[in-house]
Amino acid sequence: MSFQALPGFRDFYPDDLFIRNYVLSKWRDTVTRYGFVEYDAPPLEALELYTHKSGDEIVSQLFNFVDKGDRAVALRPEMTPSLARMAGARARDFKKPMKWFAVPQLFRYESPQKGRLREHFQLNCDIMGESGFGAEVEILALLVDTLRSFGLTENDFKVRFFSREFWRLFLTSSDIGLSIPVEGAPDPIAIALGIIDKMERRKPEDSRKDFGTIGLTDKHIELITQFASSGWLTEPLKDTLANDQMETLKAQYLEKLQAFPSIYPFIQLDGTIVRGLAYYTSTTFEAFEVNPKAGQTGEKFVGRAIAGGGRYDDLVQKISGTSLASIGFGMGDVVLGNMLKERNLFPARQSSVDVYVVILEETLRSSALGLVHTLRDQGVRVDYSFVSAKAGKQFEQAQERGASHAIIVAPDEWQKGQVKIKTLATRVEEIVSIQDIRSKL
Amino acid sequence: MSFQALPGFRDFYPDDLFIRNYVLSKWRDTVTRYGFVEYDAPPLEALELYTHKSGDEIVSQLFNFVDKGDRAVALRPEMTPSLARMAGARARDFKKPMKWFAVPQLFRYESPQKGRLREHFQLNCDIMGESGFGAEVEILALLVDTLRSFGLTENDFKVRFFSREFWRLFLTSSDIGLSIPVEGAPDPIAIALGIIDKMERRKPEDSRKDFGTIGLTDKHIELITQFASSGWLTEPLKDTLANDQMETLKAQYLEKLQAFPSIYPFIQLDGTIVRGLAYYTSTTFEAFEVNPKAGQTGEKFVGRAIAGGGRYDDLVQKISGTSLASIGFGMGDVVLGNMLKERNLFPARQSSVDVYVVILEETLRSSALGLVHTLRDQGVRVDYSFVSAKAGKQFEQAQERGASHAIIVAPDEWQKGQVKIKTLATRVEEIVSIQDIRSKL
Repeated sequence: MSFQALPGFRDFYPDDLFIRNYVLSKWRDTVTRYGFVEYDAPPLEALELYTHKSGDEIVSQLFNFVDKGDRAVALRPEMTPSLARMAGARARDFKKPMKWFAVPQLFRYESPQKGRLREHFQLNCDIMGESGFGAEVEILALLVDTLRSFGLTENDFKVRFFSREFWRLFLTSSDIGLSIPVEGAPDPIAIALGIIDKMERRKPEDSRKDFGTIGLTDKHIELITQFASSGWLTEPLKDTLANDQMETLKAQYLEKLQAFPSIYPFIQLDGTIVRGLAYYTSTTFEAFEVNPKAGQTGEKFVGRAIAGGGRYDDLVQKISGTSLASIGFGMGDVVLGNMLKERNLFPARQSSVDVYVVILEETLRSSALGLVHTLRDQGVRVDYSFVSAKAGKQFEQAQERGASHAIIVAPDEWQKGQVKIKTLATRVEEIVSIQDIRSKL
Repeated sequence: MSFQALPGFRDFYPDDLFIRNYVLSKWRDTVTRYGFVEYDAPPLEALELYTHKSGDEIVSQLFNFVDKGDRAVALRPEMTPSLARMAGARARDFKKPMKWFAVPQLFRYESPQKGRLREHFQLNCDIMGESGFGAEVEILALLVDTLRSFGLTENDFKVRFFSREFWRLFLTSSDIGLSIPVEGAPDPIAIALGIIDKMERRKPEDSRKDFGTIGLTDKHIELITQFASSGWLTEPLKDTLANDQMETLKAQYLEKLQAFPSIYPFIQLDGTIVRGLAYYTSTTFEAFEVNPKAGQTGEKFVGRAIAGGGRYDDLVQKISGTSLASIGFGMGDVVLGNMLKERNLFPARQSSVDVYVVILEETLRSSALGLVHTLRDQGVRVDYSFVSAKAGKQFEQAQERGASHAIIVAPDEWQKGQVKIKTLATRVEEIVSIQDIRSKL
């Protein structure tokens, strides 16, 4: 009998956890500078919280079950429904805009492809209670700076954004002719957005077939593809009002983003960005890796997706009954971790110990442990041998643990209130009185 | 439709998460000074990892289900089986002793009593690869110091310890007469330890009835009760060899603990401490609250249990096939949190912002955002208004967010490369040039 982690789940050995903690602490550090505060929700929630409003992509991939109290429950696949539940329930207790973040572990029953995990850690940042584009500017700046804090630059990533508003204006214009459905009927615009979201990753004929189900012809599809590829209209629509309105809006968005000079070089308007989640209402965006092989034959500019998000002005209302216009993003630890690894942007792991106390005689163990305790109380990371061992063996262990100094407790010196301190890198030894140890480290 | 957290699960609003982060960071801080390194395992594991060796107390309270790939799985109720799995699988990669810690969230389907949660966070510390009592000394010292780091003292908690070895010697002595069973048969010693573990919390007649099932009479039970209450034999056993051996062992244990002067005042030998988990082999221990009402009528000295652990020299072998003598403890965040709250030992929550940038004219927004960005890049926590707002409203928000300083970006000063800095507590204002801002905060 030998046990293993479940497929798609990671064991974090100390070297792995060092990396995970590095990523999580950088995340916390950057969002804290933006004035965000941290929250968390349970990893297990009522199933209906997800089936209710999150869209099919997630629901088909849940770890869900019925608990011993006959409740249908699920491991959280995303954080936003929990956030909407919590923020809505106590919205009046907090000044707006609320700037909240979390670093949950999330779970999806993905098909077990190579490298596809079933859990990951995700930074979630949300601004709630602000419907103006100022929140977009802040959240996009935060997204860019979070990635910049790891040493990633314009050569490594870009942020593409768009708005479902633009698509809605375009798809309902007389050139395309989709219409907003009556209550309860399937929404052709939502269906079209779902197809557009996946267009970049699928064969053109597959997308064409799906567009056919909502009555769109090749002529329509050509217009949609053109619009998606640039985000701008290459020819004026018949429906000039929608046309003008849309281009004006886009120009305004870009102008406002320009106001944050540090992020503007990272930002691109891109019509393909509509995102898979059903609850986004307007702005959607995605940070993606600039493919390091871009330019070579067959290699696209857009590499892996690093983070994504959007505005969801209705979700909190639908989940909690309280209206709260919101925007946010999620950034996972897996693609980001791979990017940092490939670019050698992870720091080397620190040693786990500063000082190793060498006990030369067992009769001095109690005295030595007193010293160990005093140093630890002063914030020094200290180790020592649990058993009687030869000095050589103890120095060996001091090296293994990465201690910078050994403190040698020996009978003669201890009697005079002294110890020997050895700097392990230089092998220089010095005799110091016990009360001076701290100043020598 | 309004959603809530599942019963027994906590929402962590920012105030709650501040407290949780305080507890977790103190934990990490103390164990790091002891030279421990952090690891983590998946929150979902194969069910059999727990049904295999952990004892009935846990197995009846699992959140378990069958996943979409037909695997029997469970949310982790404790960390030790995962640790045994991981450490056993790669034991040869690490120098011994291994000093590892984790801070997992754990899950139990407890019956929904008042205040009984179904999840908690738990500090887990383990020393693996050291069978000598030196590991006991280190782990008990760590337990004591972890609690001391929160400001708790000898008046707040004690640590009781014992060894199943002592009980095994006593229960198999001719005075009691239990015998080690043949392979496969129920183990009367394990059953007796289970009864002894619960004795303190049950009616004497209930324990007596259970002892009867393994053939123990009132005379035996009286001896067991005496032994449990003090941890020492009040009268010599018939079986003098076992008697001497046991008392010598205990004296040795206490002597070795005395070697760590800082922890000795916290330590008590106590025969009732055998702990519920089946896999403990010898030493078991428990940190408990000294009941603040002790001494009053009907009030016991022993309050709530804060942490518990023990030595499990066989578990890693049974789970992974690799032998690794180990000892460790777990400390939850709930009882500890309540104790700290009752004693006012939590710090006040810090503000979320250092500086609030007040934008006096919208034409200066881009310039102001450039300044916001520069300050954030320098590590300052900065906020500002996302929308055009009157100065008074902006100062109000600066106060609400707890900023210590407001930086006022106004047309006249900005033209001269200057801003006004206002210290919000004193209302003192000062005009400084932009490059000097950092030195004024």
